[in-house]
Amino acid sequence: MPITREAAEALDALNPIAHTRARFDLADGVINLDGNSLGSLPSGVAERVAATLRHEWGERLIRSWDERWWELPVVVGDRIGALVGAAPGQVVVGDSTSVGLYRAIVAALALNPTKHWIVYDADDFPTDRYLIEEIGRAAGKAVEAVPRPQLVSALCGDTAVLVASHVDYRTGDVLNMAEVTAACHDHDALALWDLSHSAGALPLALDACAADVAVGCTYKYLNGGPGAPAFTYVATRHQAAASNPLPGWVGHADPFAMGQYYRAAPGIRRMLTGTPSVLSLSALDAALDAFEGVSMAELRSVSTSLTELFMALIDERLGWPVLSPRDAARRGGHVSVHHPDARRLVDDLAVAGVIADARTVGTQGPDVLRFGLAPLYVRHVDVWDAVDRLCRVVAL
Amino acid sequence: MPITREAAEALDALNPIAHTRARFDLADGVINLDGNSLGSLPSGVAERVAATLRHEWGERLIRSWDERWWELPVVVGDRIGALVGAAPGQVVVGDSTSVGLYRAIVAALALNPTKHWIVYDADDFPTDRYLIEEIGRAAGKAVEAVPRPQLVSALCGDTAVLVASHVDYRTGDVLNMAEVTAACHDHDALALWDLSHSAGALPLALDACAADVAVGCTYKYLNGGPGAPAFTYVATRHQAAASNPLPGWVGHADPFAMGQYYRAAPGIRRMLTGTPSVLSLSALDAALDAFEGVSMAELRSVSTSLTELFMALIDERLGWPVLSPRDAARRGGHVSVHHPDARRLVDDLAVAGVIADARTVGTQGPDVLRFGLAPLYVRHVDVWDAVDRLCRVVAL
Repeated sequence: MPITREAAEALDALNPIAHTRARFDLADGVINLDGNSLGSLPSGVAERVAATLRHEWGERLIRSWDERWWELPVVVGDRIGALVGAAPGQVVVGDSTSVGLYRAIVAALALNPTKHWIVYDADDFPTDRYLIEEIGRAAGKAVEAVPRPQLVSALCGDTAVLVASHVDYRTGDVLNMAEVTAACHDHDALALWDLSHSAGALPLALDACAADVAVGCTYKYLNGGPGAPAFTYVATRHQAAASNPLPGWVGHADPFAMGQYYRAAPGIRRMLTGTPSVLSLSALDAALDAFEGVSMAELRSVSTSLTELFMALIDERLGWPVLSPRDAARRGGHVSVHHPDARRLVDDLAVAGVIADARTVGTQGPDVLRFGLAPLYVRHVDVWDAVDRLCRVVAL
Repeated sequence: MPITREAAEALDALNPIAHTRARFDLADGVINLDGNSLGSLPSGVAERVAATLRHEWGERLIRSWDERWWELPVVVGDRIGALVGAAPGQVVVGDSTSVGLYRAIVAALALNPTKHWIVYDADDFPTDRYLIEEIGRAAGKAVEAVPRPQLVSALCGDTAVLVASHVDYRTGDVLNMAEVTAACHDHDALALWDLSHSAGALPLALDACAADVAVGCTYKYLNGGPGAPAFTYVATRHQAAASNPLPGWVGHADPFAMGQYYRAAPGIRRMLTGTPSVLSLSALDAALDAFEGVSMAELRSVSTSLTELFMALIDERLGWPVLSPRDAARRGGHVSVHHPDARRLVDDLAVAGVIADARTVGTQGPDVLRFGLAPLYVRHVDVWDAVDRLCRVVAL
């Protein structure tokens, strides 16, 4: 029996976090199924940014550094920490995800200086791979790119750091953070997690998994806005020994002493580099309000329900190959579907009011459609409508 | 005969760029004499950022990457290029000034790989010094910190790069860019200029001086807002050989191919790293409208007139030691004055509606007051009123 729109509505009626959709300013007639690339605009962001501009910058000028701005990287960091299972004082926000990854990878290597290998996922997001190759070259470390399923078996006694995305940006495949981290520690290696497609999409337990270092993007499921600054986690036990390869004045123990030599700040502040990007941090701070009172376990249950419904509809109505794991425990917040004409379909879908994106997994150009189903604002009926519109686009 | 407020008004009546003050949303009763730290809020910024939030992000979502965002770093870069004497295609905007400096210094060293020394100003801004020391250590290069007046005489045949701030953040002292760059080239060394206190404050001629690489801050005289992204200049002749030590996906020749190895984009785009910070770039783009139609030579003449008036009033009414050069050609956009109680005076001045800042030049804590006189919005009467209020604060 076909899955009806009424069935989707019935699932929405049971959604324990259905109320969070009202926390977003959603465009009329547009279904954003690309929250894994750019989350939708939370309601309070525009007001907060306007206040930052007019009051904090325009009226208070530099006084706002003392009044609010200087602490924003750690204040917002702790709020993200609460969403990723990190106790306060371990997360800081600033710079792009790429810059954050560079800093974190070099710092992680320096925490394990006698070892020589960096093991990483051969199919990870390009920035991760490019940076690792460059860092390996510059630092004289050996790098080994291995297929994702073989990451753990590639560890050896000379592995310094394993770098991997917790959720695969292409397929949504989820690694078991606790198991992989434990395997790293069995080899006296550090685990560095890229949480770009995880934070805000599913429950994380960085502290409980004994994760060492992590970096994540804030403009996907955390809805911080285009190019919002990344977060960096360094476990408390590593902080005293962690050195920042980009030692700017803001990470100094006493920045305004303008001292002759660099002396790292105590705690997580040492992972800061330059002057914080206040407009972006303020937007992100306001965006995080959308998570207030939300249980990540409940959010995850809705996410799973959305991706299950989406795959069932694809199976039923299009029969296209689904690249994402069928096992819900192994699947993140987005679903990827193979189609050789992915680019055109994404463009046509946008005209039909459904935002998705296309990525290249093979070598012949965009061949995968990605659909990110962010539970804070995507409903089951949106999923039903989106697949319905996709079917119409295909029939064009 | 004392300098009267009427004399200041008479100078304002002759100001050829007096009309630009109306391009700012200035707080009532507040005189911002800290434009060398955080420029005032230009009028169009709030509207532009609101449109970026509500329309570009909220409604267009990821489609805005193609429609506007992807090109912002080079579009805004070229606008800054026009203010610093750089032909199009040589300036790009992104990341903090500290991160930009790191990238530029490492890239400059790689452009001159057979040489071993980095020469830098021993009293430069902390970020510059900390980064150079760390880069020297990590890259196995020798570093030499020399007093600013001896920078040129410290050059030798084994100097790879000279790094210096064109305008000293403490005193406002200006180096002769053409002469110092030529001296570098005489030794087959590269000149890397930190333009943080220069861009938007005085005419610059990067191309005409044959500058090699430069980085500058955009939240001071360019009024981009707190933590606005930095700009990076790489002369066209160096671009093909310039390598980015932070090779993120956005600087790749074909970012969306997600290719296996890093291949640098042609031209200045190769100096980009991660996803552009769109909110900050949009604010900066709008802020630059305040410079539309302004001759930098005229702006410089106003700047000089403002700093001359300020020093004359300090001499007349307080007699405090002025640390900034008396020679106008050697003085940037701010004036520094010695006072052992600088911190308290700055706080009391703020209460009196005058924003300045305190910096530590000696070793006994803040002992210098800095007054940045940004000609786009500071009038001669503001200078007169500020010194008048300073006298009252001193009398407290």
